[in-house]
Amino acid sequence: MSLPANAPRLGVLGGMGPLATADFLVKVIRATPAASDQEHMPIIIHNVPQIPDRSRAYLNGSDAPWPHLLDGLRTLEAAGAAAIAIPCNTAHVWHARLANETDLPVLHIGQAALDVLALECPQARKVAIFATTATLKARIYHDPLVLRGYVPLEPDDTMQASHVSAGIAAVKAGRVEAGRLLLAEAAQALARQGAQALLMGCTEIPVALDGARLDMPAVDPTNALARSCVEWWHAAKVKLSLRDAQV
Amino acid sequence: MSLPANAPRLGVLGGMGPLATADFLVKVIRATPAASDQEHMPIIIHNVPQIPDRSRAYLNGSDAPWPHLLDGLRTLEAAGAAAIAIPCNTAHVWHARLANETDLPVLHIGQAALDVLALECPQARKVAIFATTATLKARIYHDPLVLRGYVPLEPDDTMQASHVSAGIAAVKAGRVEAGRLLLAEAAQALARQGAQALLMGCTEIPVALDGARLDMPAVDPTNALARSCVEWWHAAKVKLSLRDAQV
Repeated sequence: MSLPANAPRLGVLGGMGPLATADFLVKVIRATPAASDQEHMPIIIHNVPQIPDRSRAYLNGSDAPWPHLLDGLRTLEAAGAAAIAIPCNTAHVWHARLANETDLPVLHIGQAALDVLALECPQARKVAIFATTATLKARIYHDPLVLRGYVPLEPDDTMQASHVSAGIAAVKAGRVEAGRLLLAEAAQALARQGAQALLMGCTEIPVALDGARLDMPAVDPTNALARSCVEWWHAAKVKLSLRDAQV
Repeated sequence: MSLPANAPRLGVLGGMGPLATADFLVKVIRATPAASDQEHMPIIIHNVPQIPDRSRAYLNGSDAPWPHLLDGLRTLEAAGAAAIAIPCNTAHVWHARLANETDLPVLHIGQAALDVLALECPQARKVAIFATTATLKARIYHDPLVLRGYVPLEPDDTMQASHVSAGIAAVKAGRVEAGRLLLAEAAQALARQGAQALLMGCTEIPVALDGARLDMPAVDPTNALARSCVEWWHAAKVKLSLRDAQV
């Protein structure tokens, strides 16, 4: 199928960090059934990392990232985006406010991850969450998990600091192998506590745990968000062709 | 150094194809000296693959890609880009016209590749070019090579069809290993004909030849373009801080 030049475009509010945005882009491309360049999703990416650290801001009660997020949203709207995706878990602290500021659908990385969890781990009830301390405290994964009847588990404060936060920081600093060891050890500990699945709720974590052997299945929210973008796009294309057929 | 929110932004005219754009983004990130998210280059990416095949258009004397390229340029200008990069060799057929349409610098992938060639292969005089047939016929690499005193070599028509074009098509179809075999065989043939360096003048080729053992050094223009973007960015930041210091 050849696509019209006015095919719906995805807007990516990215740069948090840049490597996570690149990883997301690759996952969108891989999740798209396409035999030629032209069949791939049109995407405008706002990869502007000059935005204050989301975790630190949330934990300090600061709203500093907000004007940057809003500016990115406006840029994507002006560039013709028809939906917004944010490949950063912690930035979802501001998801509801962003969704409130625009008529475009703003896809939610947590909802996308829980859809994949239900599909791929239908037996799991106890679900471990690895994420930044801000994502944990903001209950970005906890609330939707509880709503859907799951029991969320998280590392205790000591392990959160020594293994999860330290593992994420190692990946951000380019020490992927060190990050993998820390995160895999934490995953083993949670599995011993009864976790039946793992939500890798920070975009650095799937980068580290890619290919690692764990004692439970792991859901990659970046990949889940990519899949939900492809689903949005297919639905938007169908709507567009129905509308064009009526003209 | 913390960057101002008005730090100069790179505009990427991408989507040709999408995987080449993702590869370019990763290469820009890797080429940037940065210890935190905030020190990375702000980039707006127009990844819209709904543009007619550049090779086919050029070979058929068609200008069909032009309005799409111009539309992408205008979108990037409106989103605040301060320079433009195009991670697609064949699209450089339209480079001069794009540069004519804007006040922004439009970096040239061929010039960037020749700068790296001079730096990394100072002894090479005879240089093999692997590229789409359109890039060869448009002399995107030939003319600048001759201007700088090099002797360009290209595969004969048979090998161009059976190995280079077929190898590029294999990568585009996801058969990277098949592409690697074809392209590595062609590289051996050119080395036997006296080539002392290889320009991998199509964004699919470095993807295939990554890690392959060749009889000559190979220059990756995607990576060269990424490096020239980082150089542009550092110069633009210095200009900005000098201007701000004068205010």
